[in-house]
Amino acid sequence: MALTPARTMPGVLELLPLDQIAFQRMLDVIRRNYERFGFLPIETPVIEYSDVLLTKSGGETERQVYFVQSTGSLNAAEKMNALATNTTVPELALRFDLTVPLARYVAEHERDLSFPFRRYQMQRVYRGERAQRGRFREFYQCDIDVIGKDSLSIRYDAEVPAVIYSVFRELNVGAFTIQMNNRKLMRGYFEKLGINDAEQQMLVLREVDKLDKRGADYVRDTLTGEAFGLSVEVANQILAFVQVRSTSLKDALDKLDALGEGPEAMEQGRAELKEVLGLIHAFGVPETHYALNLSIARGLDYYTGTVYETTLNDHPQIGSVCSGGRYENLAGQYTKSHLPGVGISIGLTRLYWQLRDAGLINTAQSTVDVLVTQMDPAQLPAYLAVANELRSAGIATEVVLEAGKLGKQFKYADRAGIRFVLVLGENELAKGVVTVKDLRREDQFEVARGELIKALRVELEQAAVMG
Amino acid sequence: MALTPARTMPGVLELLPLDQIAFQRMLDVIRRNYERFGFLPIETPVIEYSDVLLTKSGGETERQVYFVQSTGSLNAAEKMNALATNTTVPELALRFDLTVPLARYVAEHERDLSFPFRRYQMQRVYRGERAQRGRFREFYQCDIDVIGKDSLSIRYDAEVPAVIYSVFRELNVGAFTIQMNNRKLMRGYFEKLGINDAEQQMLVLREVDKLDKRGADYVRDTLTGEAFGLSVEVANQILAFVQVRSTSLKDALDKLDALGEGPEAMEQGRAELKEVLGLIHAFGVPETHYALNLSIARGLDYYTGTVYETTLNDHPQIGSVCSGGRYENLAGQYTKSHLPGVGISIGLTRLYWQLRDAGLINTAQSTVDVLVTQMDPAQLPAYLAVANELRSAGIATEVVLEAGKLGKQFKYADRAGIRFVLVLGENELAKGVVTVKDLRREDQFEVARGELIKALRVELEQAAVMG
Repeated sequence: MALTPARTMPGVLELLPLDQIAFQRMLDVIRRNYERFGFLPIETPVIEYSDVLLTKSGGETERQVYFVQSTGSLNAAEKMNALATNTTVPELALRFDLTVPLARYVAEHERDLSFPFRRYQMQRVYRGERAQRGRFREFYQCDIDVIGKDSLSIRYDAEVPAVIYSVFRELNVGAFTIQMNNRKLMRGYFEKLGINDAEQQMLVLREVDKLDKRGADYVRDTLTGEAFGLSVEVANQILAFVQVRSTSLKDALDKLDALGEGPEAMEQGRAELKEVLGLIHAFGVPETHYALNLSIARGLDYYTGTVYETTLNDHPQIGSVCSGGRYENLAGQYTKSHLPGVGISIGLTRLYWQLRDAGLINTAQSTVDVLVTQMDPAQLPAYLAVANELRSAGIATEVVLEAGKLGKQFKYADRAGIRFVLVLGENELAKGVVTVKDLRREDQFEVARGELIKALRVELEQAAVMG
Repeated sequence: MALTPARTMPGVLELLPLDQIAFQRMLDVIRRNYERFGFLPIETPVIEYSDVLLTKSGGETERQVYFVQSTGSLNAAEKMNALATNTTVPELALRFDLTVPLARYVAEHERDLSFPFRRYQMQRVYRGERAQRGRFREFYQCDIDVIGKDSLSIRYDAEVPAVIYSVFRELNVGAFTIQMNNRKLMRGYFEKLGINDAEQQMLVLREVDKLDKRGADYVRDTLTGEAFGLSVEVANQILAFVQVRSTSLKDALDKLDALGEGPEAMEQGRAELKEVLGLIHAFGVPETHYALNLSIARGLDYYTGTVYETTLNDHPQIGSVCSGGRYENLAGQYTKSHLPGVGISIGLTRLYWQLRDAGLINTAQSTVDVLVTQMDPAQLPAYLAVANELRSAGIATEVVLEAGKLGKQFKYADRAGIRFVLVLGENELAKGVVTVKDLRREDQFEVARGELIKALRVELEQAAVMG
């Protein structure tokens, strides 16, 4: 039989075990922190009805959707024809984010949920992107959202940065800054400058969002060009506005005041930002970790108030590692209920890939704490007894079950990232001791059989702290 | 705008948060135990190339496969035509199990893996099943496998029941029995009865697998009927063989001996089973939890030696909750390397669904440990300070951020499965205490602010033990 080449499609990130362990640790940190703030888990199916998935979106998003059909349904000739002639949209599709499934979930289960509904969701999503370095067709999103029924206090907008702070501090990725803005403030400021049309405001907002990528000159040229036709003066005021950054809480409040009076939307946005900034401190986020950044717009029309982006101070090239904001109504396409919310998303696959690229991921350590070697096949029951004890004490233990040279067994442990190796030879068994080898420190010691668990716990705790 | 009905396709299990928490706890128990035995995590993409996925399988499996196409590729007219006229298989498909992706993974990354390669994988798989109660189109599989390079000691076949025992004991689903058999023993016994053709042996084996569902008379009639043409005597010997069950280790060994001498395959199977049974004890599995059951065949041609099924003693109608076995060569379709292995799979979605149906799942408790109520909006900073402390101590804490009646806040906690509620009113703040309400026990007590964490830890530990 000819062999089929073993391969995966481009745009997926498949990891070797030690890398997967590092990835899993990040997932665990995120989950632990989401739960610590009282967010509840949900999971939704990967496959959704395409009419449910594609109510809102069009254009770019729709072209990237993966459609799904089972071979069973392919048999129905009329469906095939419809598909071939493009007369109907296929029935099923893979989700491309977690927000649309959340909207569907909340609308579907509304009567069974308690509001404010605080949910987290950490699952993979699918986008048929063009294959390109750093672009993923399958990737994890780790989302939280708080959904209110009819209304949702602005205070929740201040809780979100506390969650971000808690997550990224524990992810241990160096200094980071949670950058904040408010869409009402932006639109209100544009209105103050004479841009009254809501659609025009959105277009300006999208232009401004390109500031970091394209630079001020490009944005100024576009705004004063044919498409927008703004005066140089107005364009310059917009550019000055979006270049506002704060260096402390007081500085942020001062800079908001310095924008001068404006129309209602602007005043509302400013009041919201001030309340949020004022509360963040009480939520335990230090001033060093958040800032006003009036260029943050987030491309999506979806957001209506507070918006967030989080950047790593020492790795600006990575861009935002956690983004989100406040929206007016989650699920208008499925329900008449008014469901405002606020949320964020961490694109973990891309983040992991970038952090690894930047050398910030430690992938040296296995989940296996201890390898019990096999010196003498006849002593296997003794090795297994030790392993049973260790496992009962919560220590992840692998036993070598194939006979082989001890040196080869050490090599296996080393290669597999297992730090501690136990040796129970004739000597050790006679003396009632165990030899513990620390492959990282290239050190070893003997310990009495009855003291083994205690000794290993100390070693493992030290290893966890010291690395 | 007309509303789109919010709904999911049949055959998926979407859970409300408290149910999701119970499900997640099961996933965590399984993962923890897999890791405790030194299995390493991997995850593979949901989407695979269909030529990779469908090398081996045909028939039933192929009809159940979900094929995938992105809208981008749908635009290519020739592909559409090919699809419509069924001239080529679509390029991408969703995995229908974790075994084929494992084979592909091991073949693809062979040079980067250490052997024996011990991996666990807990992900969802997809099958386009006919919609039917208890049949899932999307479901979790939680698999472990040990893969050897060239060879793999039979001892690993004895480790597998130890993992099963460890998992199901902690899942807390009542008494269970790991039932074992060996395909070599079965085929060798059939050979002893004069059924020499390997294919014929497989067909008998598949008939025998229906014993529990169809009963002995049905199987006897089939074996003596036209298709098989066996004598009544041979059929009866087969039925006697497959009705062998052991009640203890000694009984198992005795019953294996009582089968009499047989051809080489039978002797090999018996020797393997004896070695496995003999070692299981050293792996710490009590005699009460495993048994010989010579009717266990597992339908798949795939298995070549030891086979396992695990049943719940008090819920036989649930059937096997964890099955697997030994196979000769994992990835022959992708690589010339000889990769024998042994593994098991837990179909967690179905298991959860069945256990819930049988009333064996407790879904009353949230992941949120504590709700901090809001008596006085002006005291919000004090409430947040308490929450920050609790979260730093690892206690999952939600703070009520919307003003509202206290009674309504208690109701919210109760409905959300949050057991402990903190009240910090004027009184408490003046006295430097906190009132802790236990909604489960309908009890409450005051505790000094500085003693709060300690007191809550005691309560939470008690709650975890006592339920």
